[in-house]
Amino acid sequence: MSLYPSLEDMKVDKMARAEYALINQQQQQYSAPPASASAPMMYPSLGNYMGLELSDNVIALNMPEYTQSALQQATTADSASGNNAQWIAPISGSSVGLARANVTHGIRELTLCKDKANHVGMRVKDINKGIFAVLVVDKSPAALAGLRFGDQILQINDVIVAGFSMEKVHDLIRKSPKNGIKVVVRDRPFERTITLHKDSTGCIGFQFKNGKIVSIVKDSSASRNGVLIEHQLLEVDGQNVVGLKDKETRKIIDNAKTVVTITVIPTFIYDHMVKKMAGSLIKELMDHTIPSM
Amino acid sequence: MSLYPSLEDMKVDKMARAEYALINQQQQQYSAPPASASAPMMYPSLGNYMGLELSDNVIALNMPEYTQSALQQATTADSASGNNAQWIAPISGSSVGLARANVTHGIRELTLCKDKANHVGMRVKDINKGIFAVLVVDKSPAALAGLRFGDQILQINDVIVAGFSMEKVHDLIRKSPKNGIKVVVRDRPFERTITLHKDSTGCIGFQFKNGKIVSIVKDSSASRNGVLIEHQLLEVDGQNVVGLKDKETRKIIDNAKTVVTITVIPTFIYDHMVKKMAGSLIKELMDHTIPSM
Repeated sequence: MSLYPSLEDMKVDKMARAEYALINQQQQQYSAPPASASAPMMYPSLGNYMGLELSDNVIALNMPEYTQSALQQATTADSASGNNAQWIAPISGSSVGLARANVTHGIRELTLCKDKANHVGMRVKDINKGIFAVLVVDKSPAALAGLRFGDQILQINDVIVAGFSMEKVHDLIRKSPKNGIKVVVRDRPFERTITLHKDSTGCIGFQFKNGKIVSIVKDSSASRNGVLIEHQLLEVDGQNVVGLKDKETRKIIDNAKTVVTITVIPTFIYDHMVKKMAGSLIKELMDHTIPSM
Repeated sequence: MSLYPSLEDMKVDKMARAEYALINQQQQQYSAPPASASAPMMYPSLGNYMGLELSDNVIALNMPEYTQSALQQATTADSASGNNAQWIAPISGSSVGLARANVTHGIRELTLCKDKANHVGMRVKDINKGIFAVLVVDKSPAALAGLRFGDQILQINDVIVAGFSMEKVHDLIRKSPKNGIKVVVRDRPFERTITLHKDSTGCIGFQFKNGKIVSIVKDSSASRNGVLIEHQLLEVDGQNVVGLKDKETRKIIDNAKTVVTITVIPTFIYDHMVKKMAGSLIKELMDHTIPSM
């Protein structure tokens, strides 16, 4: 079962395989073709696919990472990273944004300290008996340690916080020593990423208002890849955009490369997370730096 | 940044690293110790950790996969699969359930056909302009092709279904040819997995009612790993339990190995998915087979 980050990846991978199989057939007629050799008959041309204009010229002009040399690079990178790679990602595989935006739902440990004002720089919210980071202050110890909006806090200095109230957790942090606060977090459980590909006009295909996705453009990358409305846009290529003005977020999307990975969360959970938190807090304090990998 | 499927994995991995570093220090005092060598001082004993009884005897009796030989096996398997493995999973890494339950959010293509009654064996529901599989009939072409409850349908025979109504999709399938129906799906976008470890009494630490998680046991694996209430239990080690009676689901959990991976979805989304669908449909028809990998 092959899995791809985006529908465009699947299409291009299929085309690359078909081409490879064809070349193989022509060059080595004495040996049996590979298992994927039946593909060329089924996908003779991507040019007509889904109304996309995918001639060689258009690709070279608008989507340089789709060209043969880029594809070969990607393939090389792919095989270098071992055969156990779960994704076969001929295009998006080389995208830095995809790697930065990766949501694993896995567990990791951070070590926090307190700044001069005795703050670690995070606010939490209790949801369904779990504790979630809903504000990570720019340049704070929490931000520097790599905590992100939406991370679930599991343990603080060996105390399991499941079932705790927001106040109890804030109190626990206040009473913690100044240094070496061990925090175990689960990577953003309510969030997921969707990888999109800009078309020749730079469009990825959805409208948003106050960060909330409100409509999907027909026949766009967003519609092909299943972007949903009633979801909040949290990150673009791994960079947090919570609390940014829509036109600032739009600029970040415009400046992104052809392959853009967005991180989303259902709006009803987002609303619950930021409920009762002053909008100005988020707007002024939230960490919006580009994460290191 | 190391990522683990469960908190227990992180603890045991740390212990293994600490031990390895100690042995290394003793054996090769002439060479510099590895980077993780500072660990032994910080984690001298797991026995007292979090009130868990983790003496060698208890481990051998109740959690055979935690023993040294099992750990070595897991480590070997881990290094064999390449160094780009994202998880360092000394215990859960060897769990078949974890692999079966893997939710990737990636895209794949299925080929469906129709059975004698002209059915593919799935029902869909439109949610937020997306189409989701909410019933996969046991032994139907859809089940055999590997479709799962919660999969998002992106394309049917090259038609993008974003924004379609439930009726329009069912109509599209009805009008499809009998064979070779190409369906592109995104792997269960609203779902996520949580890996838990049974304690010596076989408890993983949560109560559920009609499949909905209603409470978390204090100091259990569920509380350590951040299981949330208001979530519906969809799979146990990758096996679908939607529509099963609670005591049947309980039996599946009881029969599972020490490492159990559950797949959950927020209840409000689940309720939306099964709304207006007769409960008897789910109970009688749903595919509950154990997935192949």
